[in-house]
Amino acid sequence: MSAPVAIVMGSQSDWPTMQKAAEVLDALGVAYDARIVSAHRTPDRLHAFGKSAANEGFKVVIAGAGGAAHLPGMIAALTHLPVLGVPVQSKAMSGLDSLLSIVQMPAGVPTGTLAIGRAGATNAGLLAASILALADEGLSARLQDWRAAQTDRVAERPSDNA
Amino acid sequence: MSAPVAIVMGSQSDWPTMQKAAEVLDALGVAYDARIVSAHRTPDRLHAFGKSAANEGFKVVIAGAGGAAHLPGMIAALTHLPVLGVPVQSKAMSGLDSLLSIVQMPAGVPTGTLAIGRAGATNAGLLAASILALADEGLSARLQDWRAAQTDRVAERPSDNA
Amino acid sequence: MSAPVAIVMGSQSDWPTMQKAAEVLDALGVAYDARIVSAHRTPDRLHAFGKSAANEGFKVVIAGAGGAAHLPGMIAALTHLPVLGVPVQSKAMSGLDSLLSIVQMPAGVPTGTLAIGRAGATNAGLLAASILALADEGLSARLQDWRAAQTDRVAERPSDNA
Amino acid sequence: MSAPVAIVMGSQSDWPTMQKAAEVLDALGVAYDARIVSAHRTPDRLHAFGKSAANEGFKVVIAGAGGAAHLPGMIAALTHLPVLGVPVQSKAMSGLDSLLSIVQMPAGVPTGTLAIGRAGATNAGLLAASILALADEGLSARLQDWRAAQTDRVAERPSDNA
Amino acid sequence: MSAPVAIVMGSQSDWPTMQKAAEVLDALGVAYDARIVSAHRTPDRLHAFGKSAANEGFKVVIAGAGGAAHLPGMIAALTHLPVLGVPVQSKAMSGLDSLLSIVQMPAGVPTGTLAIGRAGATNAGLLAASILALADEGLSARLQDWRAAQTDRVAERPSDNA
Amino acid sequence: MSAPVAIVMGSQSDWPTMQKAAEVLDALGVAYDARIVSAHRTPDRLHAFGKSAANEGFKVVIAGAGGAAHLPGMIAALTHLPVLGVPVQSKAMSGLDSLLSIVQMPAGVPTGTLAIGRAGATNAGLLAASILALADEGLSARLQDWRAAQTDRVAERPSDNA
Amino acid sequence: MSAPVAIVMGSQSDWPTMQKAAEVLDALGVAYDARIVSAHRTPDRLHAFGKSAANEGFKVVIAGAGGAAHLPGMIAALTHLPVLGVPVQSKAMSGLDSLLSIVQMPAGVPTGTLAIGRAGATNAGLLAASILALADEGLSARLQDWRAAQTDRVAERPSDNA
Amino acid sequence: MSAPVAIVMGSQSDWPTMQKAAEVLDALGVAYDARIVSAHRTPDRLHAFGKSAANEGFKVVIAGAGGAAHLPGMIAALTHLPVLGVPVQSKAMSGLDSLLSIVQMPAGVPTGTLAIGRAGATNAGLLAASILALADEGLSARLQDWRAAQTDRVAERPSDNA
Repeated sequence: MSAPVAIVMGSQSDWPTMQKAAEVLDALGVAYDARIVSAHRTPDRLHAFGKSAANEGFKVVIAGAGGAAHLPGMIAALTHLPVLGVPVQSKAMSGLDSLLSIVQMPAGVPTGTLAIGRAGATNAGLLAASILALADEGLSARLQDWRAAQTDRVAERPSDNA
Repeated sequence: MSAPVAIVMGSQSDWPTMQKAAEVLDALGVAYDARIVSAHRTPDRLHAFGKSAANEGFKVVIAGAGGAAHLPGMIAALTHLPVLGVPVQSKAMSGLDSLLSIVQMPAGVPTGTLAIGRAGATNAGLLAASILALADEGLSARLQDWRAAQTDRVAERPSDNA
Repeated sequence: MSAPVAIVMGSQSDWPTMQKAAEVLDALGVAYDARIVSAHRTPDRLHAFGKSAANEGFKVVIAGAGGAAHLPGMIAALTHLPVLGVPVQSKAMSGLDSLLSIVQMPAGVPTGTLAIGRAGATNAGLLAASILALADEGLSARLQDWRAAQTDRVAERPSDNA
Repeated sequence: MSAPVAIVMGSQSDWPTMQKAAEVLDALGVAYDARIVSAHRTPDRLHAFGKSAANEGFKVVIAGAGGAAHLPGMIAALTHLPVLGVPVQSKAMSGLDSLLSIVQMPAGVPTGTLAIGRAGATNAGLLAASILALADEGLSARLQDWRAAQTDRVAERPSDNA
Repeated sequence: MSAPVAIVMGSQSDWPTMQKAAEVLDALGVAYDARIVSAHRTPDRLHAFGKSAANEGFKVVIAGAGGAAHLPGMIAALTHLPVLGVPVQSKAMSGLDSLLSIVQMPAGVPTGTLAIGRAGATNAGLLAASILALADEGLSARLQDWRAAQTDRVAERPSDNA
Repeated sequence: MSAPVAIVMGSQSDWPTMQKAAEVLDALGVAYDARIVSAHRTPDRLHAFGKSAANEGFKVVIAGAGGAAHLPGMIAALTHLPVLGVPVQSKAMSGLDSLLSIVQMPAGVPTGTLAIGRAGATNAGLLAASILALADEGLSARLQDWRAAQTDRVAERPSDNA
Repeated sequence: MSAPVAIVMGSQSDWPTMQKAAEVLDALGVAYDARIVSAHRTPDRLHAFGKSAANEGFKVVIAGAGGAAHLPGMIAALTHLPVLGVPVQSKAMSGLDSLLSIVQMPAGVPTGTLAIGRAGATNAGLLAASILALADEGLSARLQDWRAAQTDRVAERPSDNA
Repeated sequence: MSAPVAIVMGSQSDWPTMQKAAEVLDALGVAYDARIVSAHRTPDRLHAFGKSAANEGFKVVIAGAGGAAHLPGMIAALTHLPVLGVPVQSKAMSGLDSLLSIVQMPAGVPTGTLAIGRAGATNAGLLAASILALADEGLSARLQDWRAAQTDRVAERPSDNA
């Protein structure tokens, strides 16, 4: 059976960001398939991926890209699956260009956009898990445990030695 | 049986934006419950809503707010359900404040953020539908039909009289 | 013989902007073909257009879009022809989102980007003409005449009644 | 008797910023209680803190957070005490997201916002002291002395060796 | 006995914004004195006001200005009283210039800054009231009543006819 | 026979950016002439260059500058050749000033603007090549090969060791 | 004898802004010569003006332009006279593009930049007058009178009927 | 006889920026007096300096400050001398706050603003010199020589070893 989550990114250089999504999916026991799909350098691969994503068995697509970040929106144009977008931090514009390129989609084709950078990638993994958990009680329980543990780890007071 | 989608907003003045989410859910035959929950003026209502959303039977929460828009993120802190955020266009900052307040969540608590304003509200409805469609073949078919019709409505050439 | 310039835009609503490109091409005697190609609502049309643009006989593509404006960059990914991008002014972000989505392309796939809005559309027409004029002496002469006339129209002094 | 100032922050990582508030309160002889209260990871702790802050004896709350910084505004929603917000400098957006998330509160629920980063934390401490000094002549004298000493430390001329 | 709150503004044109502070103070039964003090056109008046504000009996100063808004910060430099700043919405920059000019004060001289425009002015009045309420139980009760009434006015559901 | 492409830049310090244009033109076998022409420090050289560029045999001008970047636009004012602008990343504004100074040209005088920094310089070279390739089948083939090779180099999956 | 101040602007459409400079110079009895000099549409006129400005007898140049505003900086490159720049408010970017294009000049060629829009034009006239007043006691007296009258016109209190 | 130029700055930490103004004035043989005048920490010194600057014999004031940079505008409010403002680069906002706080002055009180950071400081020195040169032929000649030498130093071609 195929993985329910696809993690796609525009280039190898996005992996240090996007692997945070992979890490949290690993922690939650959710399988994923990580691929490089460049909207600009491999437009045919993009087209084929978007067209076949649902048939391949994916349930949710996480897409990360930076700068003029077209990957999440173009996948969203090609599939009816939920697409979550991660703006990768860019050099000159600090990711503001990535964020606006991903989030400001026209009515009719949505991308659920997360924060710029690694926090956003982690959260894309969590949001994907929360979507899959709607039909998976075991995952729902693991997700709630993960969140409870996160809450428990917050110290009561700041420490000078932390 | 309760509605699967909650549409919550910070104030009555957000309704002209958020009703675009309601309209698209109506078109797709998805039930929803629209409520005003102000993070700042009704923090207890917020806390109660976030705590009970899953138990009330909601599957997805769409939350819209403007300015220092804390509603989507605070609901996301209180529930493990997927939360979609709509930045309502603000007066002075044109919604940039709304967008950053919603999307820049820290690792651990995600909000899937849509575009500023009415396009974003429409897309929140569509994204909610695509999430629910993962476990609802009828809805999946209606969503794909809706998207195909949208594609069909795009004219080949621009018209001076349009 | 086919027109040398394609003017493509993401939606009918972009035409009031993009027709400024058409007007200046009309003035210079350059044929064009104006089409609606939505990257998000008609991704197959986009893919087909980009793949066939060179074979259709186009020499230059002018592409305009607003918000998360993916059209110019995606066409540039699909053709080796020169692609000129026009950021259409958006409602919430005044076109800053359009501009960054078009201009911040990664190394390897260029879009020559013009100013936000109607001035940018006029200039896309002029830049397309200057490209075609490299191999068309008549057009080069007409372009130089157009520019000389533009210079001549600049009054020496401001007028309170202008 | 309890401390009059609460210094709360969203995470341990905010402490290097927020301890500047503690330092200036130390210098002025004002007691404070420093706590970690994460709006997003510990929403129940947030709710409990906001509800009980006045009863605990606090007079002023200083709250610091970064990114989609909801802590100051949510505390302000839960207490009628004066709340001072410190935007912690964020990685991608340099604190602009923190600033707008804190300062752009809707009419009805105020947060008095200070500058981004450590200068803002120092100033939150000073502003809290100036508020408490309204009913504490000794503190008022110490605050005026502190400010006079600050004035006295400003050299007349710049030095190459400073 | 003198009014405890001074509402100062850079010009007559700021009054439509700043009178929202006056209105909320009226509603809470807090006396105020509204004056025009232009940092740039009446620098001597500014200097005199800042120097004498504490002696005049003011407890809190609310200062509003737009553009290169120096009034709040300069008053804060001249008095040890708490100073609250309201960024008035400017024409070209929509108040971003006003906001940054007021909030980005260096360590040592604080201004507690509210939101851009009329919401910020209302909130400056509320924050001033919450400061005065620390030593005025009657005002504290009125402020809590005002906030409770505000909460009560929030409807449960959005209305198409609102 | 003269080189078809002029690469001009405002100062020696722009060369680390602009040499990316030279590198890609080298790879494609397109001759170029790289010169320093400062709009501000050598305005006569600018005027002479712009006036003579067409007569010198140039077909396309690539111009890079940073900050208040007037070079591309001023050359475009002086020649009817296509001018491509590269915004060099600036220190304080990260190239946003460079970008806006180059791209926001008024109707009548176009500059085709590329991304901020080295990616933009590479793309200026590629766009110049695509323009020249319209009348040079050999170059067109080399450009298509270059792009195909670029596509082939994109790995299928991200690698932790890349 | 020639006028000491040149007011130049990029187009007729800048006159409603720039005439505020003329009005204040009229009020102060300073002669000026208002001209249209478009950096982009009349580059030869720009070059000639900049080269001859000192010989024509001008002492100060006020230059206003919008968007990619190259006029002030290019004049500053061509003359050693003091050049004052006025960013004219632009449509899409509200004058931020104009401001950055004028103020962010590289070391070596200064433009003294005023505020965006009509306030900036008024202030350019005042700054020009203050420069000329260094060698003109009568003008210095008139300027000080003008400023004193401005101070006197500031009301003590805001008026609801103003 | 007193120095004709005052270089004032808000703090010792501004000197690495502002000494660029001193260096260029040294190179041009213009005397200056460098002082620290903090608008916020030494408001009386500010008031006294602004009031007495003309009587002290200064002709031009160069003022540099960062963040909520009130120094240039407040000096301009206190003297009729020409005031040139240098936005010192700030930590969080990269000097955008400094720039807007200095340049966006209301009609009636001008500051001639230069670029952010050290380039702006150099240019403030040059602009001050160009103002003084209007009544000093020797300085005018030295300034023109300085500019000619600057022009001569621009190499014809970029060098890989520069």
